Amino acid sequence: MAEYQAPLKDMHFVLKDVFETEKLWSELPGLAGAVDMDTADAIMEEAAKIAGEVVGPLNREADEQGSRWNEGEVTAPDGFKEAYATFCEGGWNGLGGNPEYGGMGMPKTLTAHVEEMLQGASISFGLAPMLTAGACLSIDAHASDELKDKYLPNMYSGQWAGAMDLTEPHAGTDLGIIRSSAKENGDGSYTINGNKIFITWGEHDMAENIIHLVLARLPDAPKGPKGISLFLVPKLMVNDDGSLGERNGVSCGSIEKKMGIKGSATCVMNFDDAKGWLVGEPNQGLACMFTMMNYERLVVGIQGLGAAERSWQSAIEYARERLQSRSPNGAVAPEKAADPIIVHPDVRRMLLTMRAYTEGSRALNHYTAMWLDKSKFAEGEEKKQGAAMMALLTPVTKAFVTDKALDCTVLGQQVFGGHGYLREWGQEQLVRDVRICQIYEGTNGVQAMDLMGRKVAANGGQFVELFAEDIKEFIAGCDDNMSEFVPALESALAGLQESTQWVLDKAGDDPAMIGSSAYDYLHQFGHVAHAYMWARMAKAAMAKQGSDEYYDGKLAVARFFYSRLLPQANTHKENIRAGSEPVMSLAAELF
Amino acid sequence: MAEYQAPLKDMHFVLKDVFETEKLWSELPGLAGAVDMDTADAIMEEAAKIAGEVVGPLNREADEQGSRWNEGEVTAPDGFKEAYATFCEGGWNGLGGNPEYGGMGMPKTLTAHVEEMLQGASISFGLAPMLTAGACLSIDAHASDELKDKYLPNMYSGQWAGAMDLTEPHAGTDLGIIRSSAKENGDGSYTINGNKIFITWGEHDMAENIIHLVLARLPDAPKGPKGISLFLVPKLMVNDDGSLGERNGVSCGSIEKKMGIKGSATCVMNFDDAKGWLVGEPNQGLACMFTMMNYERLVVGIQGLGAAERSWQSAIEYARERLQSRSPNGAVAPEKAADPIIVHPDVRRMLLTMRAYTEGSRALNHYTAMWLDKSKFAEGEEKKQGAAMMALLTPVTKAFVTDKALDCTVLGQQVFGGHGYLREWGQEQLVRDVRICQIYEGTNGVQAMDLMGRKVAANGGQFVELFAEDIKEFIAGCDDNMSEFVPALESALAGLQESTQWVLDKAGDDPAMIGSSAYDYLHQFGHVAHAYMWARMAKAAMAKQGSDEYYDGKLAVARFFYSRLLPQANTHKENIRAGSEPVMSLAAELF
Repeated sequence: MAEYQAPLKDMHFVLKDVFETEKLWSELPGLAGAVDMDTADAIMEEAAKIAGEVVGPLNREADEQGSRWNEGEVTAPDGFKEAYATFCEGGWNGLGGNPEYGGMGMPKTLTAHVEEMLQGASISFGLAPMLTAGACLSIDAHASDELKDKYLPNMYSGQWAGAMDLTEPHAGTDLGIIRSSAKENGDGSYTINGNKIFITWGEHDMAENIIHLVLARLPDAPKGPKGISLFLVPKLMVNDDGSLGERNGVSCGSIEKKMGIKGSATCVMNFDDAKGWLVGEPNQGLACMFTMMNYERLVVGIQGLGAAERSWQSAIEYARERLQSRSPNGAVAPEKAADPIIVHPDVRRMLLTMRAYTEGSRALNHYTAMWLDKSKFAEGEEKKQGAAMMALLTPVTKAFVTDKALDCTVLGQQVFGGHGYLREWGQEQLVRDVRICQIYEGTNGVQAMDLMGRKVAANGGQFVELFAEDIKEFIAGCDDNMSEFVPALESALAGLQESTQWVLDKAGDDPAMIGSSAYDYLHQFGHVAHAYMWARMAKAAMAKQGSDEYYDGKLAVARFFYSRLLPQANTHKENIRAGSEPVMSLAAELF
Repeated sequence: MAEYQAPLKDMHFVLKDVFETEKLWSELPGLAGAVDMDTADAIMEEAAKIAGEVVGPLNREADEQGSRWNEGEVTAPDGFKEAYATFCEGGWNGLGGNPEYGGMGMPKTLTAHVEEMLQGASISFGLAPMLTAGACLSIDAHASDELKDKYLPNMYSGQWAGAMDLTEPHAGTDLGIIRSSAKENGDGSYTINGNKIFITWGEHDMAENIIHLVLARLPDAPKGPKGISLFLVPKLMVNDDGSLGERNGVSCGSIEKKMGIKGSATCVMNFDDAKGWLVGEPNQGLACMFTMMNYERLVVGIQGLGAAERSWQSAIEYARERLQSRSPNGAVAPEKAADPIIVHPDVRRMLLTMRAYTEGSRALNHYTAMWLDKSKFAEGEEKKQGAAMMALLTPVTKAFVTDKALDCTVLGQQVFGGHGYLREWGQEQLVRDVRICQIYEGTNGVQAMDLMGRKVAANGGQFVELFAEDIKEFIAGCDDNMSEFVPALESALAGLQESTQWVLDKAGDDPAMIGSSAYDYLHQFGHVAHAYMWARMAKAAMAKQGSDEYYDGKLAVARFFYSRLLPQANTHKENIRAGSEPVMSLAAELF
């Protein structure tokens, strides 16, 4: 098993060669020169050390040991507490946080790469900072100044961690039917009761306090999703002077036994007359929750990318070292008993597929981050456009990236043959760990519905047109040396626009059309988005060709993507054209 | 979690409606009326009880407990020993065995379904009878009468188990470079030395003796695959009177920690001056080994099918019971807080995909078994044709079925949302368990190479033409009511023939062509084969329509397969046309 090393060179390629990120930073008014590339380089190098030297080495053993529950207390795996302390001391928890409250205010186009390093090193560990950052975002956007003052600084410092308490045993995707309740106490606080499940790091020993953001219903709230409110509920009460007080009515009943991310604790949380405070307006809880949820969906995509990258690092090392059979073109290591398996076409196919989707996902995550930064730091039309593009791309980066990340980790395991099935090599753990990314923070089916319904159909395809314009603008800037990619990209884009129009035309008369085309639409979209990213990477690589063979590699992978992976986009288009009938016609009882 | 129930109705559909299996049995001269459908029904009902009541209930706990190693002894999970005894008492171990030595001589078209039940109940458990049956096949085909007399009856009875000892730490796919050695003792026996890894059930406490079939090299044997011989090496020596003697030099050094099939023991086996006997001719070991390997490849496909079926059974139950959100066509259970999730188009897409590939695989496994039976029990041209078709289809049923089985178990887990990730529901175990099926008994990449190279290119596509003729004969027997399927089937078949010809044309000049098209060819082939199976199932269902709504379900799934899954075949064809360049062009050091 290769130890995880942050792929700094590939990240720099994306940041500097493919996207003009420093220019973006200097031009965004809201960022006000907070970061330049020198600072970013220094930050990324430090983050790479934490990921590679502090967090990464804990990941394998944490899987074996797991988090442990004992009478309501949860102990994180050996080394996590110390690593968390190191992480927090470096100020990493507040990297993207609001500077008014002690955050560092860095843009997503930088933090996304730092997040990839952390999640690549260990998803189980990375979930703790991820949930804290998400909770901070929601508090920062929706809570009162008093709550912000009281909680944000200690959360950005990592002294206190955050958790997100949404799901109940009977209510997962359908949060509209939750039963947890909140009653006003008359002093500005509320009394919260209810049971929550699947609460990641809902309890642990890494931070001195845990700040829960809890969905609950106020008395007489409207039924369904419009009657849900969000509450801040600390594990330990915080006194007016900021010191910690008594234990709140918040307890961890048990933790789950899971397929993977075993290092993290997935908690059953009980709220028994717990004291909490409203975040945002009454009955606006889902909107406030989505502030953190959207952030977390992007990080889940980044988790997928991190796991795929880690699997790749081990797979390529193994493929170079493992000797087995001879190259079809004649022995390349005749002095040895066999050739390294990287000579075999089918092993190369697996490795190239991994590289294509992994590097395509890194570029796509960066591209999405760019729009997020515009939505946050730009002004006027550009800000609006940023918000629209980010909304459109969020379900794609969450679901397409993690679907492909599963495929990549399965391939990375397959390269190892039988050894890939053994726990000691770590490849099978990545499959188990990354599998959760397709499920949590809204299943990938829910993401597909979100894309097809809310992000495409609801605005008559306007957001898709923004995306198409961006691609066309890129194409307009390509010269003849891009002619091996441009026609295929144009055709893939046209196919996506046809699918969009086709669904828009049918959806009015057929309420099942959106749901039955959602999966294929998301995967068609994902392939077109990756084709766009690979065209941008190919263009950037051509510009640098000759300076470093590294760029020849990028071009070869771009060609592989276009010839061997992009054709799937057409299949998805064809599936959409089949309509809803094949999916809907069978009566439920005949399944 | 639904308890496993053998899908008898679906099996009967395949045996009786889709294929005229009883007619086949009555016409095969070598089978000599050994079985009719009444007997088969009785056998399958008994097997269903063993699978559902004895073996299936052990599977979940066996995953948690695992097999345990202690100073060379391996203890199977709780209940396995007793279940194995029950299984053997019923005579199940010898179901397909040679009647001359106590086997029951049943055809594969029956045993395949019994095997599906057992493997669906538990792959970990099912591996023990599978390896015993495989070892018996090889002994029966290649060993001396003396060895057959001495070993087969007690192996068919299950009193003694079998194991297959091929892999060494440096030699997996590439068995030509194994180092284990054998020396003649002068009394007809040999002394075996060497270390083997990945030996499934190489040691355990379920049977009183374990008969190892071990690959080793004789002194002065030619280098590579042509210098390997196969030896029978018992764990305990067998005296001339059949009683057990002293311990042989065979020991289990450790067992592996694995992703799944944790109930089974994957052993490191040490042979230290162990006594063994040659099976078959010297230096013909790989051919003798392939007798069992080919059998086991078919069972691995059956394992995949079994796991997919089990995942389906839980998924459909959950989809009917879990209430979450409302149908896009309006509430179907307005009296409840939400509708069952089977109303949602994307959930239906997942369930239908599972059904399509699972039932398609069952039919394909049966179809392959039919050719195997012809290769064994027919005469003359039909026997030859049977052998050719079986050779062609074996890598497809092994690799395509198990690739799709992984997809199906992932979908079956996804239907459960977050609950699918928890161990208690069993869905994640099926993903972990079935994952090995893509790896062992020749990785699926090796299967693809076997198909494209040995089974297609090596005979200039003759076997594919046999397959095409069979499809065309079926099509010739279809009338107008099959017109919604026949043109698509014809076109899919033509596409496969084009791919075949394309690769044949290129392979002469391009040694990497076979390897770089192998994966896509196998998947194109798999989809065409499933299209053929679904056309046959559709035809059978149409003939019975009106008698039972069950047949409407078959037709709906056939339509789903043709409209939503078959289009992938074209993508694979397009990938093959891209040639070897995209896979081979990147220098190994630039990966």
